Order: sequence, then C-alpha cells, then structure tokens
Amino acid sequence: MSKRIDKFQEWLKSKDIPFGFITSSDNVFYLSGFRSNPHERLLALGIFPDSEPFLVCPLMEKEDASNSGWNYEIIGYTDIENPWDMIRKAVEKRDVSVNSMAIEKEHMNVERYEQVQELFSEPQLISAEEKLRELRMVKDEKELEVIREAVRLADFAVEIGVNEIAEGKTELDVLAAIEFELKKAGINEMAFSTMVLTGANGASPHGTPGQTKIQKGDLVLFDLGVVYQGYCSDITRTVAFGDISEKQRDIYETVLKAELAAVEACRPGATCAELDLTARNIIRNHGYGEYFPHRLGHGLGISVHEYPSLTETNSLVLKPGMVFTIEPGIYVPGVAGVRIEDDILVTENGYEVLTRFPKTLQYVR
Amino acid sequence: MSKRIDKFQEWLKSKDIPFGFITSSDNVFYLSGFRSNPHERLLALGIFPDSEPFLVCPLMEKEDASNSGWNYEIIGYTDIENPWDMIRKAVEKRDVSVNSMAIEKEHMNVERYEQVQELFSEPQLISAEEKLRELRMVKDEKELEVIREAVRLADFAVEIGVNEIAEGKTELDVLAAIEFELKKAGINEMAFSTMVLTGANGASPHGTPGQTKIQKGDLVLFDLGVVYQGYCSDITRTVAFGDISEKQRDIYETVLKAELAAVEACRPGATCAELDLTARNIIRNHGYGEYFPHRLGHGLGISVHEYPSLTETNSLVLKPGMVFTIEPGIYVPGVAGVRIEDDILVTENGYEVLTRFPKTLQYVR
Repeated sequence: MSKRIDKFQEWLKSKDIPFGFITSSDNVFYLSGFRSNPHERLLALGIFPDSEPFLVCPLMEKEDASNSGWNYEIIGYTDIENPWDMIRKAVEKRDVSVNSMAIEKEHMNVERYEQVQELFSEPQLISAEEKLRELRMVKDEKELEVIREAVRLADFAVEIGVNEIAEGKTELDVLAAIEFELKKAGINEMAFSTMVLTGANGASPHGTPGQTKIQKGDLVLFDLGVVYQGYCSDITRTVAFGDISEKQRDIYETVLKAELAAVEACRPGATCAELDLTARNIIRNHGYGEYFPHRLGHGLGISVHEYPSLTETNSLVLKPGMVFTIEPGIYVPGVAGVRIEDDILVTENGYEVLTRFPKTLQYVR
Repeated sequence: MSKRIDKFQEWLKSKDIPFGFITSSDNVFYLSGFRSNPHERLLALGIFPDSEPFLVCPLMEKEDASNSGWNYEIIGYTDIENPWDMIRKAVEKRDVSVNSMAIEKEHMNVERYEQVQELFSEPQLISAEEKLRELRMVKDEKELEVIREAVRLADFAVEIGVNEIAEGKTELDVLAAIEFELKKAGINEMAFSTMVLTGANGASPHGTPGQTKIQKGDLVLFDLGVVYQGYCSDITRTVAFGDISEKQRDIYETVLKAELAAVEACRPGATCAELDLTARNIIRNHGYGEYFPHRLGHGLGISVHEYPSLTETNSLVLKPGMVFTIEPGIYVPGVAGVRIEDDILVTENGYEVLTRFPKTLQYVR
C-alpha cells in the first residue's frame, strides 16, 4: 500500500498542496489497504507531502484498521467525540499550514465542506479525484489477480443461475440459488443487487427481481457481480427459456454483434467514444437506437462503477491495465430486454476478455 | 405521497425559501414514492412553495418513475446530456428566482455544490435535513405496517439461522441458508450486509462473516435486516452453541439486563440520552464500560441508520411514532462478543417491541 501513498504524496508535492484529505471508503481502501464502510460516520486519510499520514476511523474499528496493515498513526473516535478536533490537532502536530487542500469533490458533502472551511480558515479546495482516478484506472498485477478471481466467481454464478431455470421457478428462486452457492464458496458480498429478470421485467434496464415466474418463450437476464478481496466483477448474460420469437432473436443477435464489435475495437490508443460508437452505430443501423438508453460500459475495480466511463463523448484514450465492462443492451417494452456484458482488460496489444460464460445464445430446454 | 410534498412545500413557504432541491435516494423516495439508486448519476426532486415540483432521473428510469405514482413533471436525461441545463430550464419555466435554496448538506457533494452555485448565481444554501428528519422520524400508519412486516421477516431470518447452527458449519454456510430462505419469501434486498459471527469474530462490533467454523462453546451473533417495500428492519441476537463459559454467560446477562432496562425506559418524553445512559450505566457498573464502544441505537425506516440517534449526549425527546433500535453490546477481545438488538416503536403510553425472537439466552445443542 505504501507505494500508493508515496505516489499520492509525490503528487501533493508536485502541486504544492500541503494536505490531502481523503474520505471515500474506496479511495481510503486503495491508499491504505483498510476496507471499511462506516456509514454516516467519518472515515478519512490525512496525507502530507513530507509528514507521516494518519487514518481516522470509529474507535471500534481501530483494531481492524491496524490489522489491515496500516502502519502509520490511527485516530479512533467514539460516537460522542468530535473527530474534527482530533484532525486539527493531528495537522498541527505535523506543523503543517493548510492554505490549500486536496479533497474528493464528488464525495465530500457540503456539511463536511463547511467544517473544513472553518477548521482551516477557508483553504483553497483542489479536486483529488482526477489523480486518484488516474492511479486507480490502471491496475497492477496484484489487482488483476484479485479481479480475475472475482470474475471467475461471476461466471460461476451465471452458470448456477442458468442451470436453475425451470418452469414455475420465480426470478427470486433463481437468484436465491445463485447467492446461496456463492456464499458457500466464501463470498459474503455482492458487487450490487443481483438481477435475475424475465419477461416484461427484462425490458427495464434497471428492473428489480420479484416473484414473476419464468415461462417458456421468455428471455432471462442475469446481471451480477461479486466482491472478492475488495474488488468487483460485473457480468450480464441473457439466455432463452424454450423457443423464443423471431423478434427476440433479432434483438439478441443485434446486441451480440454490437458487443463483439466493441470488444474487438479495444486496444491501447482507442478512445472510449470509439468503443461506445462502434456498438451504438450497429444498434442504430438495426433500428434499435432509441432502445439503447445507456452508455456502453464503465471501469471496474474497487468500485463497481469507476473510470473510465465508456460514453460516446469521452475522448479518453485506453491504456494497458485498464479494466472495464462492455455492455450494450436493447430494451423494447413488451417485447424483450437483452444485455450482454463482459469484463475487459486492455493489454499491450489489444484486449483480454475476462468473463468466459458463452455469448452465443444459450437455450434452456 | 403528495401529502408529504405538501408539508415540505409549506415549510419552504414558511421559511421564505423559493426552491428545495433534494438529491438523496431516501428522501426522494420519502417525498415522491419513487425508489431508485442511480449510483453516481443524478436523481433529484425540485420543490417550490407555489409551483409544480419536478423529478430528475436517468432517462432509462423515467418509466419506472412514472409507474411509481409520481404525477408531476419528470425530466429524464441520457448519459450524454447535462441534467443541470435541464434543471435550470425547469426552474426558469416556473418563473422562480433562486436567491436561496434548501439542500441536503449531508448528501450534496462539493462538485454539485459548485454546480448549483454557478447555476443560480450563488444562492444562500439552507439545510433541508432537519425538516426532513423531523418529518421522517415519526412514522405514519402505512409506514408502520410496512416496518412490522420487515421486522417479522428479520425475526424469521434469525430463526432460520439459529436452526442452521451445527458442528462443522461455517459462518457463511449459516448466512447462505438465511438469505436463501428470505429470497424464497420474496425479499430481494437486505438492509445491510448480514452478519453471522462466531468465536473471536464476534468480539468485533463490525466483523465480517467468513469461513470460520462454528464450534461447541462458541457464541454466535446474528445481525441482519431486510428491506421490505423500501423500509428496513434490523435485529441482533446472540445465541450459545453448546455450553459456554461463566465469563461468556456473565457478559450475555449484563447485555440483556442493559437492553431490557433501556427498552423499559422508552416512553414519550424520555430523551435519547436517558435511554443510552440507562444501558451504559448498567454495563459500566458491571465493569464492562470500555467494551461498549458504540451508541445505544439509531432510528430505523427508509434508511437503516436514520434519526433519532441514541447517544449519551442527545437531548432529543421521544415522541409517539418514532421507531429505533436498542442494541447494547459488549466485545471483549478473545473472550466474547454479545449484542442484543430490538426494534422499538414509541407509543402513546410507552413502547412496543417489534422484534420478537426470544432474548433469554438460547442454547443450541
């Protein structure tokens, strides 16, 4: 971890920023190795160009923080103590004058912003996010190893789900079976609420699984991911239960064609927009443009949605080590919802598809 | 829902605030009836003292929003559109001059704060949270009906877990069985990550379930809750597997005594601090004060942690209709972790304990 802190310290130094104050659980985990979700309580890392960093957490998590390998100061506070006083003292102890401060502008809320303004006499606030995104966007070998295992478990989960499909079972029955097996395999956290959607539900890109029974002639959409050692996977597959209509089949084949083309376009030097447009143009040319209402995909790592963001306007250039999803979808109300999503690693020469569950239309009979 | 919007409108009017801008999913759900988690995308409600409110959501959720019963304007935006322009236009259309604005200071982030400052020429920002908390803290009959069902399912979940305890099973095995049965019963979302902790793990107030095997002589701690129709339950029970030591038993009995006393102290007119101190003093008097590192409890509703907050310094006075947890705990590293948590409703004359799973020490043989 301390290599990551070093890089952040170097950045502070290069920008002449005396104090970095990081409060999102994901960035705290990335920089410190301590993974925690303290809900509304404050979790924070204080980082300085030349002084020892500190971690702030609820007192009851202090031992966990220490066990996670964080070797610097840990400031634990109880529910009736004011962590801000402790932070001020920790900064004073280091003899640092906070005239400017790097924070996560997308994470720090206005209440904390007002606290910070008061605590340090209105420092200039600089966004730390761009730098943290840049660091996190390119994964190192250790991270890739963990992500590969998270993805393997996602593939396994889809396989369980597909095997579970049967007449009379509900979306939630299938979902229950998937998560049961994952927990048995040691997974205690999903990357997001697992989706198993069928029939009309599948036609909503963000539907909620319920007690709808799976019927012959339906498409069944799985969208799920696990958290493994703090890293997320995210896969979507859509399969057919029995024979489906020609229209459903056409939608499936269009999504698949778009997905494969976008994957094929992955390589260092390509832009996010190129990838999105590769898929989007195919879908548009097949007349389904209005039914693909979301971006092509998103970065994947500690957060299930991180950078890069694959939109048709993002000119960001791909680099080796980036990991993201490619997940075009077509949702025609009353007819079908199809999405196919892979997790992709950009390599030196092209790409590697991490997710392995088959994408040619699978029929469950 | 529209009664809730009305109350918020009245408040805006009484405070002479021309524009309320609500962005947390929980408050948007409370006020609009539309429940959504758009992750990093913007979800917002615009509310005015005298004009029609509007809802802002990703385009792909527009239909869901409309189906949820929201009868006013819905502004849907795609991933490449700027929702802020649309918001400015919606405000202009209503001919409202935004010289001040009510926002959720604990939710709005600095980036959006800077957007809003620019969009409306630096309006004065007023916290909407106190009013929303006040509204949400006292539950209406419909809410209580839903919460009762969420709590019933939490009781059921603990029962499944306790029945599942056996030599050789891991924490995750038991957890898998619990969530499997809940999903079969129609629950697709837990209120938070389910905890099943045993042995040394139980002694961490926020431990993570893993592949530790449950052994005779261990205490097993369950902390879980479900989301039912948007409302959360939250229960903790600790049971013994086989015979336990005298020390473990003493800790259990101390927590139980503290819990029962705090519950007994619930009534309109009592303060949060009184409740916390009732439990805390008992634990202190038994010599375990330093091992009870968290507050007594928290409000429960749309959020699993909401108001009131039961700390030893909160002078807030209880009112009929409030729902909160009472959950003292003692965590002695290497010896035992015990927590007992009930969901409590404050009634006209006292309290009702919603959670019903037995609290006298249960032995699994």
